Amino acid sequence: MPRPRVIDPAELLARARGGDRSALARLLSIVEEGGAKAHEVGRLAHPLGGSAITVGITGSPGAGKSTLTSALVSRIRAAGERVAVLAVDPSSPFTGGAILGDRVRMGDHALDDGVFIRSMATRGHLGGLALATPQAVRVLDATGWPWVVIETVGVGQVEVEVASETDTTVVVLNPGWGDAVQANKAGLMEVADVFVINKADRSGVADTRRDLQQMLELSSPDGWSPPIIDTVAITGEGVDELWRALGEHRDWLARSGRRHRRLTERASRELHAVVAARLAEQAEQLGSDALFDELVGAVVARELDPWTAADRLLASGA
Amino acid sequence: MPRPRVIDPAELLARARGGDRSALARLLSIVEEGGAKAHEVGRLAHPLGGSAITVGITGSPGAGKSTLTSALVSRIRAAGERVAVLAVDPSSPFTGGAILGDRVRMGDHALDDGVFIRSMATRGHLGGLALATPQAVRVLDATGWPWVVIETVGVGQVEVEVASETDTTVVVLNPGWGDAVQANKAGLMEVADVFVINKADRSGVADTRRDLQQMLELSSPDGWSPPIIDTVAITGEGVDELWRALGEHRDWLARSGRRHRRLTERASRELHAVVAARLAEQAEQLGSDALFDELVGAVVARELDPWTAADRLLASGA
Repeated sequence: MPRPRVIDPAELLARARGGDRSALARLLSIVEEGGAKAHEVGRLAHPLGGSAITVGITGSPGAGKSTLTSALVSRIRAAGERVAVLAVDPSSPFTGGAILGDRVRMGDHALDDGVFIRSMATRGHLGGLALATPQAVRVLDATGWPWVVIETVGVGQVEVEVASETDTTVVVLNPGWGDAVQANKAGLMEVADVFVINKADRSGVADTRRDLQQMLELSSPDGWSPPIIDTVAITGEGVDELWRALGEHRDWLARSGRRHRRLTERASRELHAVVAARLAEQAEQLGSDALFDELVGAVVARELDPWTAADRLLASGA
Repeated sequence: MPRPRVIDPAELLARARGGDRSALARLLSIVEEGGAKAHEVGRLAHPLGGSAITVGITGSPGAGKSTLTSALVSRIRAAGERVAVLAVDPSSPFTGGAILGDRVRMGDHALDDGVFIRSMATRGHLGGLALATPQAVRVLDATGWPWVVIETVGVGQVEVEVASETDTTVVVLNPGWGDAVQANKAGLMEVADVFVINKADRSGVADTRRDLQQMLELSSPDGWSPPIIDTVAITGEGVDELWRALGEHRDWLARSGRRHRRLTERASRELHAVVAARLAEQAEQLGSDALFDELVGAVVARELDPWTAADRLLASGA
């Protein structure tokens, strides 16, 4: 069998900009993989972007985020816009793939050329998602997707960070006492631009709304007060209100100058992260395997502490 | 007012080993803070430890992890052992502290000298928890706590990693269809040494057990087959079985040689992380503030991509 021809990132990018979805998928795989080739993709994509609207959707497992995302995608399509979805799913390195996965997510949109859906995994390295997701957004932006929705599976530290690195962050809760408290514990109150109480056909909507309002009163106002929207994602109820809220938040970001401030903060964090990743890559090269194993053995035997071992490793690479 | 005297880590460690709980609390704060002083604490503590038994408790928000932890603490105390609990809570950097927090967690154990409970926060830097938690375990080990229980609030990537860096990882689920599926999505199946179906007085226990067993059949056996234990943590039901399962897993680890292998893997990951953190610290020092701001501005304006900007920053520090 002939080996597939190696295609360089610039050519892939040109093809993806021309509408070639498999080229786009390959670019996103490169970005997910990380490393030098991913940087090249980012470098090429960066000057081409800047116009995509990004929305993060996060909340507890089971809150109905996938269904809400799907309903929002339908609403965006009804407005005549094209939309890409990144499902940020840290489970993949452990289990070998999201068991519900893209097939379920695709659902109604599988045959729609105006929709592109992709799961992001981490390949098992800490910080991988945090680095790869903005890259994937950059690629989608550069290849002409006007809307990018980032949906997280969990609400861990990394997932919350990733979801909040967007123009508008939507936090999805369910009715009933306790859900707002859990959201607070997961660090969601401070990143939410819009709250959605999904499955609002169940009892307890008023309780959740009151909990949220009380918590919002305790937070510091910055000129935007997050609306709380009831939805039943599975029927589409309330999705028009969510759509309006996204527009209002976007207008406010532009009017208040917050959009520029957020972009600057985001670029600043990314620059720090890129520098740290560069240095970490250097770290992987340090020392021979034999030296590394010897140092690990000494740490386990408690003859050496990890910091002294790290110093020896760093010195060996000097 | 006189400023409190600065006490050096060695003196704090000596005091904490003598039973001074406020010295221990200060050591943990230093470790949480990170940086040079935290490394010094780790360096001093490392040779003194190695005998603590560590247990990680993780699972979805609302599964009853805190209650189960509290019940396990009671069981450990009934066996005449002292125990420290680390509640790993990434919400703190966002919300300024776990709103339920230590007071609720302390509950029954507040007046017990044989119990030490502490929340770990991240101070907002990515990877902070992943670095600080093993350090905190090291300090507790070195100061003579024979049991250390790590309870996570969420089930994000970092929390799952932290909980699985223990001798025995307990994954807590609830009865009912779907919880096992969510656990799988969160990457919990592969890190679980013991499963607990908590709130087992509710309906759906058999469904969850069957889901778990089916998923376990798909996973690769390594000589240990995770038991599934029903508990009602709030009444203490099933906690004796959990206690027995922890003992059996510990025996298996020792007998099979897995304990040494796990310690080696853990030390290897930590050494990589310490080297990366060292280099990241160097990164923070790079370039003047003016240069950094200028580069960020150019990235936002899309005149420069982040990798080229990082190269300029790295070159400026050479």
